[in-house]
Amino acid sequence: MSRVKLLHGSPDEIEAAYYDALARADLEALMALWADDEEIVCVHPGAGRLIGHVAIRNTWEEILTRGGLHIQARQLHAAHTMSTAIHSVIEEIGSSQATLPEVHVIATNVYLKTTQGWRMVTHHASLAPGPAPAEPLSDTMLH
Amino acid sequence: MSRVKLLHGSPDEIEAAYYDALARADLEALMALWADDEEIVCVHPGAGRLIGHVAIRNTWEEILTRGGLHIQARQLHAAHTMSTAIHSVIEEIGSSQATLPEVHVIATNVYLKTTQGWRMVTHHASLAPGPAPAEPLSDTMLH
Repeated sequence: MSRVKLLHGSPDEIEAAYYDALARADLEALMALWADDEEIVCVHPGAGRLIGHVAIRNTWEEILTRGGLHIQARQLHAAHTMSTAIHSVIEEIGSSQATLPEVHVIATNVYLKTTQGWRMVTHHASLAPGPAPAEPLSDTMLH
Repeated sequence: MSRVKLLHGSPDEIEAAYYDALARADLEALMALWADDEEIVCVHPGAGRLIGHVAIRNTWEEILTRGGLHIQARQLHAAHTMSTAIHSVIEEIGSSQATLPEVHVIATNVYLKTTQGWRMVTHHASLAPGPAPAEPLSDTMLH
């Protein structure tokens, strides 16, 4: 994502850029999407809480050395205010649509409007049993 | 929590009321703290995503018939704007401080300022391996 796009991107665009950076294993692009604040929080599925750029960057670096993560964020439920976007998504991982996985991943992504544009402040992902639930075709928005 | 306190409570007070309602197994008090919106999201540890009052209420009702949940929300990291409060806490469950549990619970709680006062819109809790991490005595705040 270019600097200009990064500055003017909507929360949806920042979220798309986030999953795109993961797919490309682009650590710099990924970390540029986080708010410039030491209180940012990241929770990976089944893992402990990471706080601050150093801890979050180190963990993503370790994960991404194994290659890109191809994740589709589906079934968005969102609450938007002027300065905050709270997204709840189902993360579909990989492209093995033919198999029903034994678990699925739920993620809460929170974005704040900062002087540098919309930025991620929280990514909280967790495992849930069974395949991702089906949902009606039309996703709805809170605000 | 009285109606007047509910209207004027800060996000911290709404969060305290939330864990207090769980301890007292008070379903009505608990549900009154959620935003009056069908897009509210609740994720229990190791479970799937619940959306809307009916699904969230039904699940809490089932949990609370077994009795109150005594949870201490510790190690708060928070991001506050004028209309949003994003809290990350470690949920210490029960009173068995002498034992080191094999897992701990991380929760993201998001509150929005509504015409009815501050209300919860997201509760996302997940399990992490090992005991809760130790943290310096002074918790810090983002904004």
